[in-house]
Amino acid sequence: MKAGQWLTLVREQSPLVHNMTNVVVTNFVANGLLAVGASPVMAYAKEEVSDMVRLARALVLNIGTLNETDVEAMIIAGKAANEVNIPVIFDPVGAGATAYRTKTAQRILQEVNVSILRGNASEIASVAGEQVRTKGVDAGDVQGDVVHVAKKAARTFRCTVVVTGKDDIVTDGERVTIVSNGDAMLTKVTGTGCLLSAVLGAFASVGENVIESSVAALAYYGVAAEKAAKHAKAPGAFQLAFLNALYETTAEEVDTYARIRGE
Amino acid sequence: MKAGQWLTLVREQSPLVHNMTNVVVTNFVANGLLAVGASPVMAYAKEEVSDMVRLARALVLNIGTLNETDVEAMIIAGKAANEVNIPVIFDPVGAGATAYRTKTAQRILQEVNVSILRGNASEIASVAGEQVRTKGVDAGDVQGDVVHVAKKAARTFRCTVVVTGKDDIVTDGERVTIVSNGDAMLTKVTGTGCLLSAVLGAFASVGENVIESSVAALAYYGVAAEKAAKHAKAPGAFQLAFLNALYETTAEEVDTYARIRGE
Amino acid sequence: MKAGQWLTLVREQSPLVHNMTNVVVTNFVANGLLAVGASPVMAYAKEEVSDMVRLARALVLNIGTLNETDVEAMIIAGKAANEVNIPVIFDPVGAGATAYRTKTAQRILQEVNVSILRGNASEIASVAGEQVRTKGVDAGDVQGDVVHVAKKAARTFRCTVVVTGKDDIVTDGERVTIVSNGDAMLTKVTGTGCLLSAVLGAFASVGENVIESSVAALAYYGVAAEKAAKHAKAPGAFQLAFLNALYETTAEEVDTYARIRGE
Repeated sequence: MKAGQWLTLVREQSPLVHNMTNVVVTNFVANGLLAVGASPVMAYAKEEVSDMVRLARALVLNIGTLNETDVEAMIIAGKAANEVNIPVIFDPVGAGATAYRTKTAQRILQEVNVSILRGNASEIASVAGEQVRTKGVDAGDVQGDVVHVAKKAARTFRCTVVVTGKDDIVTDGERVTIVSNGDAMLTKVTGTGCLLSAVLGAFASVGENVIESSVAALAYYGVAAEKAAKHAKAPGAFQLAFLNALYETTAEEVDTYARIRGE
Repeated sequence: MKAGQWLTLVREQSPLVHNMTNVVVTNFVANGLLAVGASPVMAYAKEEVSDMVRLARALVLNIGTLNETDVEAMIIAGKAANEVNIPVIFDPVGAGATAYRTKTAQRILQEVNVSILRGNASEIASVAGEQVRTKGVDAGDVQGDVVHVAKKAARTFRCTVVVTGKDDIVTDGERVTIVSNGDAMLTKVTGTGCLLSAVLGAFASVGENVIESSVAALAYYGVAAEKAAKHAKAPGAFQLAFLNALYETTAEEVDTYARIRGE
Repeated sequence: MKAGQWLTLVREQSPLVHNMTNVVVTNFVANGLLAVGASPVMAYAKEEVSDMVRLARALVLNIGTLNETDVEAMIIAGKAANEVNIPVIFDPVGAGATAYRTKTAQRILQEVNVSILRGNASEIASVAGEQVRTKGVDAGDVQGDVVHVAKKAARTFRCTVVVTGKDDIVTDGERVTIVSNGDAMLTKVTGTGCLLSAVLGAFASVGENVIESSVAALAYYGVAAEKAAKHAKAPGAFQLAFLNALYETTAEEVDTYARIRGE
């Protein structure tokens, strides 16, 4: 199935995506999922997350502003998602920045079967137990071979790993695919990584092949960013143009402009 | 009093509206109320909500991302609002989606005298004890006669009920008014329903007739959306244009373009 | 060092600014700091705030939607910031509106050595123990001499005080500087005060002279607002234009258009 076809399925099915995300990006993630064509829902209370998961087609966990209450609820939700067999996407925001984040990320990965683990290189390295240093949650530079780290994480946690950066890496621990779409303006708007994790969830919910859905989501997301960046040269304008582009980018445009290669 | 005149009063008096709303829409609700001409305040701590209510002219309760702590504080705030006799607007986001939301919505309606209950058809049906199924918090389709459900809810909870959808319904359980303004783009931006609940509060705070203030708020809100949708065809652009239109729409435009009818 | 040079240093060094702020403005503050050229991080859990502070170059505390849990964590973070000697900026949002806010603001000022205290006139008067009344968190009018109140607060809390309004006041209790840049549209977008507090943190982190860095931050912020207001006459458009202007305003423009005077 080509990348554009995954987008078409998302728009046709408008899957409900349950997000437990951080307070910085909640609004942007909800608006982004609506622009993509999915249906967002946010729910955090331990009293209801299992019920909400049963209505949803994907669960997205994000520890960007974690606290103990939310983490407990994330684990309850994650286990419920595993029971009903919907994909769980995990975004370990800031892993490596503090011991608490790294430990919490590893705990979630132990207790929940994650389908897709997405982060920047330093976050993925941290959860995989590599030695790196990060500067806050936006840092992405990491010593060593990023592809090697991604593969190791995929094998350790038995999931698909998506490492985003200038080039994006998708791997199940064996095969590696590289997606080279996107624009540097994405780094000037907060939450573009968090929204991407949610979009990976929307795409994963409409088909079986998680590698393929992830590659499609990355290509679509990057093509939309390129489209937005053509005319929007400052971050206020880019945020607006990017939401527009997520809404307007067609399946044909995705397939025309996608830059995908196996390694 | 014509619809436009209610808007004029809001802009003249700039009433302080105390919001206890969900984490997805907080920023949008605050900016929307400012654009309308009201003064937003958000406060959630049980230690202070009673004091804040005493400074405010309306209280807006929204359970979009509810948790036990916030619900306790909402009930404290609601009771304080009842004591000082300011209108309480209640938005039971996602009622029907999970048992916890339905039960919590009903609990708030039991413990607090609500002036205006606003939701989509499925949310209102759920709190009124009708059998429906919703898909997450954005679903709006419900079996049965929506007007019947709205009237039943109004009689059960002794309040004004506003059911929003393609057409908006306002009823006190006897009389029914339909407002037909608005644009489908409102469904592409998260929080437009939540902001509407807050705007209903701002309007209700400047006069005695809650039915009339609600009809005026709906007409104004819908006219602003129509104005925004004329040039903004994608969600990023629409969100910006809608905030602008809330700010720029005049009382005269509201009265010219309002589509209001009794049933 | 001229005002523009402080901006240049922020952009060159991209300091990590740790924010513990309110749920209304989190996204706007993060995007604003990115637009300025700084690196935002938000972290609230008591388990990690000390560690995050040690990675950061400034800590910004804001009680706009305070609760006991967050306040405890703010004090832990504030003490950690004092230990490692990074500036703490404190924004006592809504002090004076409720007893809980006033008391909490005073408690934070007792337990943490604050470098910069920023608020509107009524907030600063409240924490300094002057008798005033505020209407919610946006109120700014206060009886009496604002400069006198600012100086008293600066001496009481041994810090730099920034009082924002039509004219902005910066004082260490002795010297007073007035910055007269800015635009009334800033009052139509929620969080512009909160973001300013964060920007004061970014500027304070790149040099030693807190008075001078604060004056520079205010001039830059106001010049950017003036630039944005030239073409954006409604709040949706202004919010976008202001983020763009924070990104695009040059050091030269700051020095050309700054209106700074000693009193």
